[in-house]
Amino acid sequence: MKYLENMIREKGEVRPGGIVKVDSFLNHLLDYELYREMGKEFKRLFDGEAVNKILTVEASGIGIACVAAQYFEVPVLFAKKHKTSNIDGELYSASVHSFTHGNDYKMVVAKKYLLPTDRVLIIDDFLANGQAMLGMINIVEQAGAHLCGCGVAVEKAFQQGGELVRQRGVRVEALARIKSIDEDKISFC
Amino acid sequence: MKYLENMIREKGEVRPGGIVKVDSFLNHLLDYELYREMGKEFKRLFDGEAVNKILTVEASGIGIACVAAQYFEVPVLFAKKHKTSNIDGELYSASVHSFTHGNDYKMVVAKKYLLPTDRVLIIDDFLANGQAMLGMINIVEQAGAHLCGCGVAVEKAFQQGGELVRQRGVRVEALARIKSIDEDKISFC
Repeated sequence: MKYLENMIREKGEVRPGGIVKVDSFLNHLLDYELYREMGKEFKRLFDGEAVNKILTVEASGIGIACVAAQYFEVPVLFAKKHKTSNIDGELYSASVHSFTHGNDYKMVVAKKYLLPTDRVLIIDDFLANGQAMLGMINIVEQAGAHLCGCGVAVEKAFQQGGELVRQRGVRVEALARIKSIDEDKISFC
Repeated sequence: MKYLENMIREKGEVRPGGIVKVDSFLNHLLDYELYREMGKEFKRLFDGEAVNKILTVEASGIGIACVAAQYFEVPVLFAKKHKTSNIDGELYSASVHSFTHGNDYKMVVAKKYLLPTDRVLIIDDFLANGQAMLGMINIVEQAGAHLCGCGVAVEKAFQQGGELVRQRGVRVEALARIKSIDEDKISFC
């Protein structure tokens, strides 16, 4: 998606260690036009899949999922990152290692909101190491739901996440696939 | 907003201690039609305020804010609940006590994304004790930005948050104001 690639080129800030900061439009300050275009593009890509539920994980995935849901006309279910007093009842859970924060956390979803009859599209902002994505896939499998695929805004194709997910036979669509980040230059696949 | 009140009456689950669970449409599974109607209603209520930025806090506020932003056509800035390795540079921060989780946390926003020239609308899912809302107001004040008001989906009018915020001269618009919760009966103002 050229719109997102151009924005990453123009506004992304490269940091040492293959890090690109997209704070100014994707995951701290959120550009409403970009979110709209991403929502439309996910709908175009997964049209015909009869998606009836979008699954994401807090926090940065929620906004993208909610705007996309306006085009799919389906509800969003967001996995919470720890059991809070806000969720009760039976839970599906998956343990996830966060390379960003250097810790492990548990993501949880109330069982009653994810059904074997569901056709699920997973949406997230970043696919890098793939741990959060694999956690969500695990939860969809626990529920016995059908996984239509995964849509991410940005895939860091030089990290293993995309390969790990695709190896499992899961369709992955990334709106921007970063091939490499060298000093000030970001290259796309 | 009758649409939301009816949904709370029909799908809200009352728990002991004045708690109403809205997991099935507002803050775990998110109803896309409700989100659309809330976005339109916030736009109607704050039209003419020349809002140019929406501020919210992770996690449940983000989806509501992002869909509303589609109607306001402005960016969303979401406060993060702790300093992660994802934000760098100078930060505005506010300490917040969470009655839900029984702990204190710090919410942070990068200074460069909140400017004295901004006209800010704060959006969140719940206004109960008001601690998160006061934290966001504090951050808007630190930035020297203009606060157009606060829009919340649900206000628990029998708790102190709404009063604490209104006492400061801040306009608060709640789409559903719960007057009382008794056993199975929810009454609105």
